[in-house]
Amino acid sequence: MSRFWSDIVHRLTPYVPGEQPVLAHPVKLNTNENPYPPSPRVVEAIRGELGGDGASLRKYPDPTARALREAVAKHHGLRIEQVFAGNGSDEVLAHAFQALLKHDRPIRFPDITYSFYPVYAQLYGVEYETVPLNADFAIDVDDYRAPSGGVLLPNPNAPTGRALPLAEIEVLLNANPDAPVIIDEAYVDFGAESAVNLIDRYPNLLVVQTTSKARSLAGMRVGFAFGDAALIEALTRVKDSFNSYPLDRLAQVAALASYEDQAWFEAGCAKVVASRERLTSQLQTLGFEVVPSAANFVFAKHPAHDAATLATTLKAKEIFVRHFRLPRIDQHLRISIGTPAECDALVAALTEIVA
Amino acid sequence: MSRFWSDIVHRLTPYVPGEQPVLAHPVKLNTNENPYPPSPRVVEAIRGELGGDGASLRKYPDPTARALREAVAKHHGLRIEQVFAGNGSDEVLAHAFQALLKHDRPIRFPDITYSFYPVYAQLYGVEYETVPLNADFAIDVDDYRAPSGGVLLPNPNAPTGRALPLAEIEVLLNANPDAPVIIDEAYVDFGAESAVNLIDRYPNLLVVQTTSKARSLAGMRVGFAFGDAALIEALTRVKDSFNSYPLDRLAQVAALASYEDQAWFEAGCAKVVASRERLTSQLQTLGFEVVPSAANFVFAKHPAHDAATLATTLKAKEIFVRHFRLPRIDQHLRISIGTPAECDALVAALTEIVA
Repeated sequence: MSRFWSDIVHRLTPYVPGEQPVLAHPVKLNTNENPYPPSPRVVEAIRGELGGDGASLRKYPDPTARALREAVAKHHGLRIEQVFAGNGSDEVLAHAFQALLKHDRPIRFPDITYSFYPVYAQLYGVEYETVPLNADFAIDVDDYRAPSGGVLLPNPNAPTGRALPLAEIEVLLNANPDAPVIIDEAYVDFGAESAVNLIDRYPNLLVVQTTSKARSLAGMRVGFAFGDAALIEALTRVKDSFNSYPLDRLAQVAALASYEDQAWFEAGCAKVVASRERLTSQLQTLGFEVVPSAANFVFAKHPAHDAATLATTLKAKEIFVRHFRLPRIDQHLRISIGTPAECDALVAALTEIVA
Repeated sequence: MSRFWSDIVHRLTPYVPGEQPVLAHPVKLNTNENPYPPSPRVVEAIRGELGGDGASLRKYPDPTARALREAVAKHHGLRIEQVFAGNGSDEVLAHAFQALLKHDRPIRFPDITYSFYPVYAQLYGVEYETVPLNADFAIDVDDYRAPSGGVLLPNPNAPTGRALPLAEIEVLLNANPDAPVIIDEAYVDFGAESAVNLIDRYPNLLVVQTTSKARSLAGMRVGFAFGDAALIEALTRVKDSFNSYPLDRLAQVAALASYEDQAWFEAGCAKVVASRERLTSQLQTLGFEVVPSAANFVFAKHPAHDAATLATTLKAKEIFVRHFRLPRIDQHLRISIGTPAECDALVAALTEIVA
């Protein structure tokens, strides 16, 4: 508290990201990182930009990230004017709250979802209503027919992992023609259908993606929004009133290179999906109820073991999973898909605990 | 224009950064970049983080940038709680507008200064008044005694290059005990005195610095704020409500390494200062009036040649300088200090033009 603070600072309850343990070899299954390294082309591209003496680092990066946006536009069959790049999809979402979601009516998002959404709403004074998921944690798009300032949901949803079929997204878009509909596809590459191909038909659709998950670049902070050029212009106007150069030179070349290695990307996703299916069976064998996941994590509860206690017990064994002290989900754990060895370590520890 | 835009988007007039020419070998003296590469330790540190396969890039960076903030705190004789790190000093300034400058009274900054300030004010709805510089473009701190929501000024000022002595900064701080006073020291290392040592005595002082200029890291986007722990907490609360991980892994290690090579830093600044003094004399010989500069640029006008025409003529020769179409300074050029060869190319071109 300080008399020098703006009013808003007193009211903020910041987002708390998953713990980043400083241990030498933690089994880190708490922040949905990819267990595999990025494409070797990413490393080559960074080395190339660095050169012998890092001379290019003295110069500002391209403020428009043109080469990167062109490559990503081409990848998705979009025009460059339909692509916005930001410092991770968190920054992209923040700009979207300020640029597209502040209207007279409250916006709507699920009661169980990415817990950063209410934080953004608070930061920008955006009114919101939460819409309960079904008992099985599914989104029913018929619950999103009331007029609103906008609709926001992840597909697959987090932390549940449940995906919504593309046909349902289209129902949502048709039911909300006068409001922006933002689909946060951070985890889409692990088994859900992207709404990117709907962009030319729905001027109210904004799709948000990231390189942090399927592209193994959480450490480089590059995210995107795809949508009608008018929506992208709104984000660009906010960005250019906030920070001209959000993406550094190495982040731009790294992200671009990851789109040049489709084979690496597909093989990595397939490995994660195979591990997810294996882990799901093993957890079920141990008595866990596992929500069907289309993401790189599973959301599971054990009928006989308190989730917070499980998380603490695992942490003592240097195994990190995510537990949310929130209504309806305080008996669940969100477990990121690690390497087969990391999943095995988790299963071995849980076998011992629930025995 | 779009019905999906928030109100604020319609009202924004975004900042326009200096042109980033796509030519092979432009003489680029328009965005105050350092003409010399960063310390070799920076390149080593990035290569070290990258390793053989870039495996660490799959993991999120430290959201608190602890190692970097510790190193910079130590460098300045501060505690880590007095240091905030952001995605370039532009992001740091944006957060400062939202966290510390939005009060009932308008804030005050010079009429001729960094042209991003009014853009931030517009983005966050911060009322402001501009205070005219003297006829010789100096800041008179006695003009900043009226009660305000905050005072913001660069030292040295941009685009003038004029520095304010530390004793004057102290007068300013004492005259405004109830308002945050933000000193933007982007260019301080080229000849002005930093206010960092005043932090322990003035809880209303926030000092903003960058690695983009004296540390040759414009391409990596790392800036800082230094101040009383309560001011830093305000910035952190906003940052953690906006983007948990603003600094990627390579940016964190790059910036840290630059603080480990003081000799490189000092030698680089000395070279730029020597070139500035030489260029100033040469411009004066050509008839230019040059504002005394403590920065890595000079601000100059020629009594017989229109500044916009000069800039356009230079651009045709692939020499880029910055011209602002703004009241009081539309006859000036802001010229970044390049290598001796770049300065020579500029002087040769101007000699031809003004002959």
